[in-house]
This record gives sequence, C-alpha cells and structure tokens, in this order.
Amino acid sequence: MERVLVFDTTLRDGEQSPGASMYTGEKLRIAEELARAGVDVIEAGFPIASPQDFEAVRKIAYEIRGPIIAGLARTTDVDIDRAAEAVEVAERPRIHTFIATSDIHLEHKLRISREECVDRAVEAVSRAKRYVDDVEFSAEDATRTAVDFFCRIFAAAIEAGATTINVPDTVGYAIPADYDRIMAALYEKVPGIRDVVVSVHCHDDLGLAVANSLRAIQLGARQVECTINGIGERAGNASLEEIVMALKVRKDLGGFETGNVTERLCPASELLSHISGVRPQPNKAIVGENAFAHEAGIHQDGMLKSPMTYEIMRPEAVGARKTRLVLGKHSGRHALGMRYQELGYTLDEDALDAAYRLFLLLADSKKVIRDEDLMAIYYQGTMEDVPRTVHLEHLEVVCGRRPSRAVVCLRQGSGEATEAVCHGDGPIAAAFEAVRQLIPFDCTLEDFSIQSAGAGSDAVGEVHLEAETDGRSFHGRAASTDVVDAAVRALLNALDKAFHARELQARSGAEAPSPSPYATVSAPDA
Amino acid sequence: MERVLVFDTTLRDGEQSPGASMYTGEKLRIAEELARAGVDVIEAGFPIASPQDFEAVRKIAYEIRGPIIAGLARTTDVDIDRAAEAVEVAERPRIHTFIATSDIHLEHKLRISREECVDRAVEAVSRAKRYVDDVEFSAEDATRTAVDFFCRIFAAAIEAGATTINVPDTVGYAIPADYDRIMAALYEKVPGIRDVVVSVHCHDDLGLAVANSLRAIQLGARQVECTINGIGERAGNASLEEIVMALKVRKDLGGFETGNVTERLCPASELLSHISGVRPQPNKAIVGENAFAHEAGIHQDGMLKSPMTYEIMRPEAVGARKTRLVLGKHSGRHALGMRYQELGYTLDEDALDAAYRLFLLLADSKKVIRDEDLMAIYYQGTMEDVPRTVHLEHLEVVCGRRPSRAVVCLRQGSGEATEAVCHGDGPIAAAFEAVRQLIPFDCTLEDFSIQSAGAGSDAVGEVHLEAETDGRSFHGRAASTDVVDAAVRALLNALDKAFHARELQARSGAEAPSPSPYATVSAPDA
Repeated sequence: MERVLVFDTTLRDGEQSPGASMYTGEKLRIAEELARAGVDVIEAGFPIASPQDFEAVRKIAYEIRGPIIAGLARTTDVDIDRAAEAVEVAERPRIHTFIATSDIHLEHKLRISREECVDRAVEAVSRAKRYVDDVEFSAEDATRTAVDFFCRIFAAAIEAGATTINVPDTVGYAIPADYDRIMAALYEKVPGIRDVVVSVHCHDDLGLAVANSLRAIQLGARQVECTINGIGERAGNASLEEIVMALKVRKDLGGFETGNVTERLCPASELLSHISGVRPQPNKAIVGENAFAHEAGIHQDGMLKSPMTYEIMRPEAVGARKTRLVLGKHSGRHALGMRYQELGYTLDEDALDAAYRLFLLLADSKKVIRDEDLMAIYYQGTMEDVPRTVHLEHLEVVCGRRPSRAVVCLRQGSGEATEAVCHGDGPIAAAFEAVRQLIPFDCTLEDFSIQSAGAGSDAVGEVHLEAETDGRSFHGRAASTDVVDAAVRALLNALDKAFHARELQARSGAEAPSPSPYATVSAPDA
Repeated sequence: MERVLVFDTTLRDGEQSPGASMYTGEKLRIAEELARAGVDVIEAGFPIASPQDFEAVRKIAYEIRGPIIAGLARTTDVDIDRAAEAVEVAERPRIHTFIATSDIHLEHKLRISREECVDRAVEAVSRAKRYVDDVEFSAEDATRTAVDFFCRIFAAAIEAGATTINVPDTVGYAIPADYDRIMAALYEKVPGIRDVVVSVHCHDDLGLAVANSLRAIQLGARQVECTINGIGERAGNASLEEIVMALKVRKDLGGFETGNVTERLCPASELLSHISGVRPQPNKAIVGENAFAHEAGIHQDGMLKSPMTYEIMRPEAVGARKTRLVLGKHSGRHALGMRYQELGYTLDEDALDAAYRLFLLLADSKKVIRDEDLMAIYYQGTMEDVPRTVHLEHLEVVCGRRPSRAVVCLRQGSGEATEAVCHGDGPIAAAFEAVRQLIPFDCTLEDFSIQSAGAGSDAVGEVHLEAETDGRSFHGRAASTDVVDAAVRALLNALDKAFHARELQARSGAEAPSPSPYATVSAPDA
C-alpha cells in the first residue's frame, strides 16, 4: 500500500467561507478532533491576516501534538516571518507559501512578469527555510497556468528548498483529465520532483473536487488538501471524508492508504457543524444525515436480506452515530462521563462539571436525554473563550398574536440590571428590540436558524445567527429547549464576541475594524 | 455539438430520500419548474407504489407539455400496466422498467437465476411496448454486474423494443474508470446499441456521481439521469445543475450541449428547498448560497480587478438571485405581479390575489419586503392541495422562562372552537401539547427547523417539521414573522396531511397504512 498524506485546511481555506469564521477556542477544538482523526497536516490559519489568526495558529502549534502544523504565507517577508513566529512552537512546524502563476492572475491581480513571479517564489521559499525544514510551495491557479511555466516555478521552488509542491485548482475549473496532463508534465520536466511530495488541492465549483484529487493521487500526488464537510471558499474544497473513504473502499484505485481513523469522520463533521451552524445537506456523502438511510421499501427489503445489496461501507466504519435513549434525571455524573467516553470524548473534571450542570437542568424538564442532547450540551458548554460581558437576568415573551411583547432584563459586566419592554412582530423581533434598547450597539441580524437536536417537541433547539455590527459579522450560538430563550442568548453570544473584538481593537490601538480578516492584507501582493 | 438528454428523477429517486416525500400539488409545481428549465425527461414517480404516487404521475402527465413524462415500473405485469395507465395521458409518455442484474442482488434479493432475470426483462419491455413506443430499461446495480451478463440483458432488452438502456451505479461504488470498461463493452458487444440511447444514472456515495456521469457521456452516453440539488436515496443522485454547468463550462469535454435553460437552475433549486425544507449546504456547487461568494480579501481584491481571476461562470448564468429591497406597504397588486414576473413567475389572478393578501399582512409589520420574502409568500400561498381541516383561531404563548404557557384555540372543520391551556418546556413544547390535547391524534415530532428567509430580526421565518403519526411521517410547513405562530401552523399543516391520508385510506377501504409508500410493493420482486 502507498501512503497518501492528508492535509486538512478546514481552519484556513474552510474558515474563509462566509459564516465559518471561528474563534481560537473553537479552532483548537477542531484541531484536537483532526489530530484524533489522524490527519497528517493541519493548516491552522493565515497568521498575517489578523492578530486573532496569529494567536489561533500559535495556540494550535503549541497545544497539538502529532500532526504537522502549517501556517500560510504569501511570498512577502512579513508574511513568512509572521508564519514562522506562529508555528515555531510546533512539534513539527511547516510554512506554506504561495503565489499565483496563471497569466490571468499575473496580469490582472499581481501585475508582475513571470520572471518576477519566480523570483518571489524562490525568495519566499529560501526565507522560510531559514526558519523550518518543512516548506510547502503552492502555485495558485496552477490548473490555468501554462504547463512550461508551472514546471519552471516548481523546479525553482524545489531548488530553493521546498519539500512539498502543491498544484491547486483554485477556481474549480479542472476535470480529472487535466491532472493527466499536469502530472505527466511534472514528472517529466521538473528536476528533483521525485525527492519532494507532490500535493493536490481542488475546489468543487463543478462538483469534481474529489474526482480530480483521486485522479491526481493515481498519477503521483502523495498529499491531498481537503476540508471537513468540504467547506471552503465558494463551492468549497474537496471533502476529506469522501477522499479518505474512496481510497479505502476502492483499493483498486491503486492501493493507497491514509493514516485516518475513519471512525472519527462523522464526529469531526458534527463538531464542525455545531461550531459553524452550517450542517452538510442530508444527502452529503459519508457524513450526511441520510448517507446511510434507506427509505424506499425496495431498498429496505434488500437491506434486510443483505446489507451488501445497497451498502458499500458500514455506517460504523465512518463513526455514524445511532440515536440512543440513554440517560434520565437519575443518571449520575459518572454515567454522564462514561457516555461521553463512549461517544469518543474524554472530559476533564471542569468540563464534566460544566456538562453535568447543564445536563441536570435539561433532565429536569425532559424525560429522556438522547446522545444528540448530550452532544448539544458538549458543544455549548465547553468551547467558550470569549469573556461573557452581558448576562440575561430575566426574559418573558408573549407571542402568538401580533404584536409580540418582550420583557428583557440584562446586566452588563458588574453593572446594575436594566430592563426593557418592547413590542415587535414576533417573539424574536420583540426580544431583540429590547436587547437593542438595553445595549448601545447598532447591529443587524443577517441570518438566523433553529435546528432541533433530536426528536420530540421538547428536543434541545440549537440557534445559530449572524449579527452584523461595526461592519463585521459575528456568529452567535446557543441551545435550549426554549427557542426564544436560545435566540436571545445566541444574540448575546454574538454581542459578547463583538465587544471582545472591539476591545482587542482598542488594545492594539489599531485602525478601524475591517469587514474581513483578509481585507487588511490584500494590499502587499496587489 | 452533440446533444445530451437530461432525465430528471427528482420526483422519483429524489423523492425516495427521507423527508422529501411530496404531495401532488407540490410535485406538479416542481414538474412545471423542470419544464421551464428545459429538461428532456421528467420521471414523475413510481405509479404502483401508492394511489397518491399514481395520481401524481397521472396529473403531471396530463398537465405538463414539452418534456417526456416517464413512470417507473418493476418487471411485473401489474407494475407495467399501472405505469402505462398513469402516463398514457402524456404528450410524450415513457415507461421505465428495471430489474437488478448483479449476482449479489440476484442471489440475496431477487433469488432468481440469470436466465429468469433476462426473461423477466424481455417480458416487461415487450409488455410496455404494447402501450408506448418509448421504453427505457435499466439494469439495477449494473456497475457491480458481470460485464458479459449486462451486455446480454441489454441486448435482449433492445431486441424486445427498449429505446433507451440505462446503466445505473445504484450503490454509488463506481469510479470514472469503471465507465471506461462498461461503455467499451456495451459498444463492442451489444447488437443494436447504436440504435438506442445509452443512459447513465449515478449515486454519490463516494462523492463521484458527477465525475462518473461526465465520463460516461464522454464515452457515448447520451442521456444522463440526475436530480435537482442532487437529492436522492442515501448520499443522493448526480446533481443536475453540476452536470449541466460542467458540460457548458468545459466545452473541451467533447463538445456536448443540453437543452437546459441554465438561468432556471437556481430557481428550481430554491423551489425544491422550500417545498422539502431541505436546503443544499452553502458550499454546494452552482446552487449553494456561497457558490459565488468571495470572502477572503485576497479573492475580493482579485475579483474587483477582474471577475475572471476567480470565477469560471457568472452567477447570472445560473439564475443566482441577488437580494433586492423592493416593495413596501404602499406597493400595489400590479407592482407585486410585475416583481414576480421579473423573478420568473407568472401568477394567475387567483394566485396573485392570494399572494397579495399575504403581502399586505406582511407589509403591515415589516418595513421593507425583500425578494426572499416574496418567494416565501409564493411558496407558501400557492401550493396547497390538502384540504384544511384544522383552523388556528387563537394562539397566545408566554415563554422565556420555564415552564412556558400556551393558550391554543382550534376549530376543526365546521365544528365549534375549543381551547386548551398547557405548560411545557419552551413555547413550542407548550403549544404543541395544547394542540395534542385538542386533536385526538397521537403524533411525535421527528425533526424541526426554522430558517429566516432574509436579513433582519423581522424576517419571515420558515418552519419545517416532520410529524410522525399512524406509523407515517408527514411534512409540515409554514412561514410567519412570528416563529411560534409558524411552528403551530406547520404542525397543523402536517396534521391536515395526516387527516387527508387517513381519509384517502378509508375511502379506498384498504389495509392499515404502511410506513413507507414503497413498503407495500416490495413483495412481488422479493
């Protein structure tokens, strides 16, 4: 069997998708899960992008053992230096530097010649090598780059010390046959290509990211860049779980194996969904809710006679969780800890205490607690790394007829509690209006969703929302059996994040906050 | 350019996915949208499955002009006769019959020999030919069938009169290279293959459905079976929009074209999402909310300089809708009709009246009405084909602290209004408990979600839920700016459907309702 390295970029390319931006604590939790799932490389972020990005990469580099931790950098000195500083504390640090190589990018975006492009790549790789041995170089938009030119720049990068060279299909334009042409050229024309790892990085704009990645692997790529649930810029990146399972199920692709613990694929997918509020569609391969569901009687009939009639892999192999009624109000703290362990999570004393408090509250009002409820508790209770500045003291809403009426009582920091009574069109509008009156923050709601965690009208509902304030979007999240209560607490969660960002901004004495973490750094390469 | 026929099976294979079952009116609406989008064949359902399935196929066959209307049938006489009866009123009817051909299916599911399998296929095709000229034959699980055997059965089906032969990858096991082998064998060994249309039907269990379909097309398939949003059994079918756009964007695949109006791809996707309550994930190619979103500053910078740097197709080409603030409370009925027309929908007088009433109600409480709100109105107001038996007379809920308290007043049919007051954990639980007390229906809530239709805390919220009763699952849907009001009305919508089903059942004097529309018919082939 030939080993293929799995390079996960959920925390970098994935986080670039709208609504998926994460906080350090959330990123760390994902990184832990990725390590548990056995990925080889974690691209933890783009350190130059913002102080928060830098902090997150550094923290992951410091805490996570096992996988290589990579930081992204353009070819400028400041980018490389900052990435080096972020990953230096890692057990196995990598700097990943990139520059666009297609004529369309060189002419319209970078406005530089091919010569200058090669020079920049070489300088960047050389500079990175001063800090780390493990340097990856990517030719952005490689699939739309003239073959001779990407061969030339890869050869130069390898000579300068790059140990991995990556061929991204940045705009998702490639079809599998394109990789036939590309890989043949690489292995034919690039000196030293056999001494480095060739990598592939595909986007899914035509729905072909996984097929393209697999084709490249068959033709010599030994690293594949991908994300959990296939999240990422626009139509997303190649989906990690699909690639890993295709290689496993279809050994005849050429006999490749990854280091992944496939049973952790679904838990990783769930964790990401809960953090981002974005669930894969039910029919998403491997990790979708229906990926192993057989509705039609014809299929059910076959399945009962032999699972092989309709199943090419067992749900257990990818860690798909079966709903189980597990605990009730008389279950103890130990039983709770045991159940979390069975679900794959070892909680330390503090985390278990926090979870148990939430569990008792829930058990008080809900007859049976399902695994889904436990996971909702876990996701909610153990990921806070934003200081809570606004506390909900009291909430009462009358709704069901127009207008709704909300009484909200909040306390900010150590100040006194204040109350507002507002009317609005619906309970959410009324309650949010009251919050707005109490907190001098101009914010608009961009997106709002509630999803039940399990069955039953008393299931825990998870609220996710996007609140825009200070020209930035903040993601708020809360869970409760009371959807209005959860909605208000999700809004406060978003506001806490906004306060925190404002404070960080003030502390760093910096300029006005930017609409996107990347906008501030797009100038140097322009 | 070579023409590839697009065969849409959203209403048949797509409807088999859990939670996607639809009512006749909803199916008709989808069929209209498919016709508008220029698909060549609409597989409208599986007529033998249930009286409702039969009705839906017949109604679509009667109403929709342009595309071929196909009905699915196993190889039994009753299946074929029923399918024929359902599609006979179509302008261009097709019967699509299938039998499994892999050894694993023959042994474990059908328990018949290869000889009997061929006999059944030939009899079915011959019988179908008595009714219609256009007969399609599928070899279920073809990709796991021995090459010699599927060549043999396809040859026999063609000799019996099949005009289309279809090669399904039923379990989603194939990789593109498998179609190299399959298509070569077909064209080499099957007499008459050049006189029929070769079709491909792929599932996405390994994320390769689109890549496999495209490969088959390159090698001679001239019909591709697919669904809107890629919905379908388990991980779903090949996604229609991805295939259509890949063929269009990548002319170098071999110069293929479809008859699709690509600008109707996003509207079709949206319609299906609203009907089923299942939205594609934001990073779904072509139709996902973020498919054309550029978050990172580096990309935004490039996009501003030239869209070609990061876009391989324009959002307008697939009908991606831009949010627009359009109408307010002073907008007239005419303006509303005009705006719907701009969005691609021509409403007749009755539909416009209904929409305008909802619009005025909404405009009363919401400053600006966005396109999203208009579409929510459209989806809600114009698709009812289930008689409303339960009316919500009054609703008042107090929530935000435990327990919540709900006052619900309902009127059933022409009976008197009755009221119940209940407490529960959260507003939804309290209100649903009150409904349960008033309506003698034992039902459990299986799934529940609320999604805002647009921005702002007074956005219309769309509630979708699954209520299980009588051993069956019913999908309820409602929209309102008050989420609790919408939740209760969605529950009543599901109950109306359950009542309706029970009534139909009673009318046909039939046996106890079955858990799935297909379960009742799985016996014959077993």
